[in-house]
Amino acid sequence: MVVLGSTGSIGVNSLLIADKFNIKIEALSCNKNVDLLNLQIAKFSPKFVCVGDKSLVKFVNHKNVFVGENGLLEMLKECKSSKIINALVGFAGLRPSVEIQKLNKTLCLANKESLVVAGKFLNTDDIIAIDSEHFGLRFLLKKAPKIHKMIITASGGAFRDASLDEIKNATPKDALNHPNWDMGAKITIDSATMTNKLFEIMEAFWLYKATNLDALIEKNSIIHAFIKFIDGSTTAHFSVPDMKLAIASAILDEINEPIIKPINLLDFKFEFSKIDLKKYPIFALKDEVIKNPDLGVIINAANEVYVKKFLNSECKFLDNEKIVFKSLDKFSGFKAENLDQIFEMDKKVREFLKE
Amino acid sequence: MVVLGSTGSIGVNSLLIADKFNIKIEALSCNKNVDLLNLQIAKFSPKFVCVGDKSLVKFVNHKNVFVGENGLLEMLKECKSSKIINALVGFAGLRPSVEIQKLNKTLCLANKESLVVAGKFLNTDDIIAIDSEHFGLRFLLKKAPKIHKMIITASGGAFRDASLDEIKNATPKDALNHPNWDMGAKITIDSATMTNKLFEIMEAFWLYKATNLDALIEKNSIIHAFIKFIDGSTTAHFSVPDMKLAIASAILDEINEPIIKPINLLDFKFEFSKIDLKKYPIFALKDEVIKNPDLGVIINAANEVYVKKFLNSECKFLDNEKIVFKSLDKFSGFKAENLDQIFEMDKKVREFLKE
Repeated sequence: MVVLGSTGSIGVNSLLIADKFNIKIEALSCNKNVDLLNLQIAKFSPKFVCVGDKSLVKFVNHKNVFVGENGLLEMLKECKSSKIINALVGFAGLRPSVEIQKLNKTLCLANKESLVVAGKFLNTDDIIAIDSEHFGLRFLLKKAPKIHKMIITASGGAFRDASLDEIKNATPKDALNHPNWDMGAKITIDSATMTNKLFEIMEAFWLYKATNLDALIEKNSIIHAFIKFIDGSTTAHFSVPDMKLAIASAILDEINEPIIKPINLLDFKFEFSKIDLKKYPIFALKDEVIKNPDLGVIINAANEVYVKKFLNSECKFLDNEKIVFKSLDKFSGFKAENLDQIFEMDKKVREFLKE
Repeated sequence: MVVLGSTGSIGVNSLLIADKFNIKIEALSCNKNVDLLNLQIAKFSPKFVCVGDKSLVKFVNHKNVFVGENGLLEMLKECKSSKIINALVGFAGLRPSVEIQKLNKTLCLANKESLVVAGKFLNTDDIIAIDSEHFGLRFLLKKAPKIHKMIITASGGAFRDASLDEIKNATPKDALNHPNWDMGAKITIDSATMTNKLFEIMEAFWLYKATNLDALIEKNSIIHAFIKFIDGSTTAHFSVPDMKLAIASAILDEINEPIIKPINLLDFKFEFSKIDLKKYPIFALKDEVIKNPDLGVIINAANEVYVKKFLNSECKFLDNEKIVFKSLDKFSGFKAENLDQIFEMDKKVREFLKE
């Protein structure tokens, strides 16, 4: 197995599962966290490793070090593993996703941005999503009646109990304080803005060809997905918030032992609420992106610019609305005919927002 | 299709489904409600009908009327239908269940007592259970990891919010007032005493070969079943309390249209509680019957005697504990070697309780 983004939380959990089930690690990649990468190298003895920057190579305890995006793609070509976990962050995950599928390897995808921006150009039937909601959906999918609707849940992020005024003046530190999940900075901000949920809607759209999609707030982060079937049935998938389950399911052919702690149903009260579009203006784009998923690349690029700015205290928390909607206005009606146009549009949006 | 017990609530719902999907009705049976049976005859023109008592034959608008249990078994032999719904009430449903399987027909079983008393002697792999909990379980079962535990839910019946003192002095009218489901008298009393849930545990034991079984109270009667899987996942089946769904699923090969109203997740709060064994002493037998399911016939016979007595105001609501446990003491260690011994034991318990 290969793990791209091995020092992030999905990467670390993936290696825990690999260790537990004696799965050989052929290659690892990280951006900058060389200290952790060296520990992983000592433990798993991968054949290849890749880091984000040339200046880091001399600190890596390995003789086969690739560098940067091109290095990563080259490294993938050398790998013999059939399963690749793509746990890279943001748009940077797309080229590796495309390459993994070109090489006829199974793409275990934690980089949802690959689907958000270019689902149309990926072979979505062959993707195993590493995301608890989509794991829940896959879990519940079987020889059942026709599906009427799929619903994923949202914890509500850092500001689920905050007022609009509190949100307006939120600092990066406030926004990074996720109530249920311990994740990287980018996805934690995306959770606080509900952009993460919009992306997961797109992910479900591409993975399951569903257009009747919605998200509801479930504050426990215990119920991850619902499927409403044509017959009137609804099913749900419950588990503690721990990514190891979705990861193990993507890696292993069959699971015959406990991966995570089971839930105790007596411990929880469940109620569901709609996503408040005043607090989470980005989620208002749901129907539009389902209608024109090509907009994904614009929304994602604008959002990446926003997250960086916000984390550097260069903009306010709710400025994402302005940044994303302005970009959508500028490039309205965008249709991608090929993958090159996706890369072009990503660049254009970033350039536009520099002005 | 054949519907045994066509004038009860399952029977009536079964005919609604048959009507909706143009399924031919070959035979109907009822105990005493000849007025409704005549309406059903006019609507469905069955080839055969059966009533409970000879004195009723002259009131039935049909020339092929069978009578009593033997008549019912004879009628089944004449039928060509491959699916038979057994919605008879109580122990009386067992002989027809056995006969239906002997005739190599599919047993669509709403008469859970057949399983409770003689699951060992039925081909449980070929039974389609008509029970929302078991429908929920079947619905959730598919190519999933190994199952750790199955949990069914209980509304709590008529006395879920009553104190022990109120329960002690409950009248039949109080007990017949079920909060969520509109069902026949026997099963409504069995719900109020939680005997129904004990029987459903046995039903699940026989149908799914599960021994790690439990029930929890879910007051909405919207979540019907949970499956806890070895990997740490839990799945649940939600639907409005309407038996048409389980019935349609038993009758139809495939469902491609709405059968019942879908639930609105925003309408409900869900929490779960343990079954209070002081209020529901019968449920304390759960582990014992899973260990020795042969006790089912004793518990069922004693319970049928109790329900009749209670409905006739000949005993108190909580006397079921005395009646059932006394019978179990009397015939303790019972093991059935063959079906005849089940019928004998049923008789013995009834005779014992006459004294």
